[in-house]
Amino acid sequence: MKKRKIYLDNSATTYTRSEVVNAMLPYFSDIYGNASSVHQFGQDAKNALSQARITFANLLNAKDPEEIIFTSCGTESDNMAITGVLNAVEGKHVITSALEHHAVLHTCQHLEKCGYKVDYIPVDASGRIKLDVLKEKITDETAVVSIMHANNEIGIIEPVEEIASIIKETNKNRKNQIFFHTDAVQTAGKIKLDVQKLGVDLLSVSAHKFYGPKGTGALYVKKGTKIEPILYGGHHENGLKPGTENIAGIIGMTKALELANNELETENEKYMILRKRLADGILKSIPKSVINTDFINSVANVLNVSFDSIEGETLLLMLDMEGIAVSTGSACASGSTEPSHVLQAIGVDPVTAQGTVRFSLGKQNTQEDIDYVLDVLPKLVEKVRKMSPVWNCR
Amino acid sequence: MKKRKIYLDNSATTYTRSEVVNAMLPYFSDIYGNASSVHQFGQDAKNALSQARITFANLLNAKDPEEIIFTSCGTESDNMAITGVLNAVEGKHVITSALEHHAVLHTCQHLEKCGYKVDYIPVDASGRIKLDVLKEKITDETAVVSIMHANNEIGIIEPVEEIASIIKETNKNRKNQIFFHTDAVQTAGKIKLDVQKLGVDLLSVSAHKFYGPKGTGALYVKKGTKIEPILYGGHHENGLKPGTENIAGIIGMTKALELANNELETENEKYMILRKRLADGILKSIPKSVINTDFINSVANVLNVSFDSIEGETLLLMLDMEGIAVSTGSACASGSTEPSHVLQAIGVDPVTAQGTVRFSLGKQNTQEDIDYVLDVLPKLVEKVRKMSPVWNCR
Repeated sequence: MKKRKIYLDNSATTYTRSEVVNAMLPYFSDIYGNASSVHQFGQDAKNALSQARITFANLLNAKDPEEIIFTSCGTESDNMAITGVLNAVEGKHVITSALEHHAVLHTCQHLEKCGYKVDYIPVDASGRIKLDVLKEKITDETAVVSIMHANNEIGIIEPVEEIASIIKETNKNRKNQIFFHTDAVQTAGKIKLDVQKLGVDLLSVSAHKFYGPKGTGALYVKKGTKIEPILYGGHHENGLKPGTENIAGIIGMTKALELANNELETENEKYMILRKRLADGILKSIPKSVINTDFINSVANVLNVSFDSIEGETLLLMLDMEGIAVSTGSACASGSTEPSHVLQAIGVDPVTAQGTVRFSLGKQNTQEDIDYVLDVLPKLVEKVRKMSPVWNCR
Repeated sequence: MKKRKIYLDNSATTYTRSEVVNAMLPYFSDIYGNASSVHQFGQDAKNALSQARITFANLLNAKDPEEIIFTSCGTESDNMAITGVLNAVEGKHVITSALEHHAVLHTCQHLEKCGYKVDYIPVDASGRIKLDVLKEKITDETAVVSIMHANNEIGIIEPVEEIASIIKETNKNRKNQIFFHTDAVQTAGKIKLDVQKLGVDLLSVSAHKFYGPKGTGALYVKKGTKIEPILYGGHHENGLKPGTENIAGIIGMTKALELANNELETENEKYMILRKRLADGILKSIPKSVINTDFINSVANVLNVSFDSIEGETLLLMLDMEGIAVSTGSACASGSTEPSHVLQAIGVDPVTAQGTVRFSLGKQNTQEDIDYVLDVLPKLVEKVRKMSPVWNCR
């Protein structure tokens, strides 16, 4: 049997789909001007950029295209949102959650070193942020609240609209407004984002998570949000993000989100069916396996599973040898021996956390892929467990 | 006669050449893994990244591939070099020049607001930095010297090796080392860069200036340079630049620099001939025109010319109507009514500075292009001058 290659790590990154590559191609060698140039070459690029901004704003239901700042990645968007607002306001307090991506978490940890106070709101067993704790933590000094839209490891969707309501209510009675950022890197292209309905002031996305190119992201910045740049140079992107615009990347990202939004429902339906098949199969065939993903309230393509008495990294490598690509958590934290901060936050004990694998489905996956995994995985888990002294003592 | 389209703004940006696009293509939809992922998809991406880093390091004659940090653009490289070093050291003094790109200049101006002291070294009439002034300005607090390799408006090449020697000498007698950064955005692909020979600690480049893709740059960071990240997230790029690596862009940039380095001599020979033809033609046919570019000591593709009693912006627009794309200075400063800080620094009076146009040659330009410009330009200058009250009073 020919060895299959099955990519189940679509939350780490996706391939760039051909429609997107085709949309980008003219902007490499045909419409290649600098969008800041006054001449026709520049204006052609500028027009493409403006049109992309309008389309992108519409895709997020932003009121004004100027609310879209194109960036180089989700990490830059996250950094810009949090540090950019803090650069513009007086408050020195940030509220975030215990399960943010490192782009938010490490930014906050750096801010603590710079004298800012940061509160990390705990979550319940499913990963949902504790709203009562968030409410309690708001002080007169609070300037930014940054809570992710969906988590990258377990897929849980946070109650962003409810958080926005709390902040809106709080802002009524104070001079120093609190600005609310959500890292929507894991939801863009998977949930139809509506910045007005979500009620956020800032929202980060990254193209390579929804079949767009790597090296391109965006930050939605609601009109009226106090924000200063975090990098310095030319007056690009409404004065917030200097550097010659990566038009090909921006065109590609816009096309990718447009396509993803059009296909949301059918794709999610497919993911839910495949995920259920995978989860049911695992629970049926592998004893002492636990699903960490809340099916009711998560992005549909993520399945996080802990296997008792297993090293996740070992299982990952053995699956890889069978052509199956999964991850043990965030790709950005790969190689780290620390147990996942996300799993710890939802109360998974450190040993079990180490035996955890994330499957993240994508456009290319089929039922045959899942069945192949269900054929291979139980044998591998059994093999690993046979070598495990912990398992054999049971 | 069919209207020509002649792009003479290659210092603003270049097209991405087809060999580069072709080199990038597999990394969109075939080798698309996240280079941080442990599985084969990730390792394939990581291998491509590692190979690109080795090639890129060789192209700059860096000792170690780890000295290459891939970034999202020249602006990010510049910001990272200056602010990154300041984040890691104690000194609060920066020395730069009066004709840096805004990516350096605005970073320095921001640092001044944050309590840093910045000295802007003056230049002579050709644009060369005054080394004696630089020497005088060094204090015990000096942490970073940032002097560009070649200027983007007039093409002058700065005495980077001599500055490096001064700093090396100074560093012998002090505990707090000074780190020397050069913005080589305008020389990469035009001059064979050799970081060891240049003697720099940090060097910035940007792919889209040498027929690579927009949205990709690099920072050379010599081993032993004290530097901290300026953005926070994953531990990518030696812990200095978080965010999933844009492999396609990095592959494209590396290919572009490889090709450019191979073609340097023939291209520069061509540029020197075309530039001379253009300059001679202008001086012969357009009275009261002054060449601001020092032919002896500049990148070969830039020609900066001031025309008496002319609005550069008007001339630019009229040239554009004839299909000729030039700029009045930095694309990043387009739309600004301020006279160029570069021309002011070399002593061009503000009125003359306003009548200045930069022609920057590229691979696609031919002698026919130059002859077309020399046919069109004198008539346009005459036309503009006829409307000028200043010109008519002479």
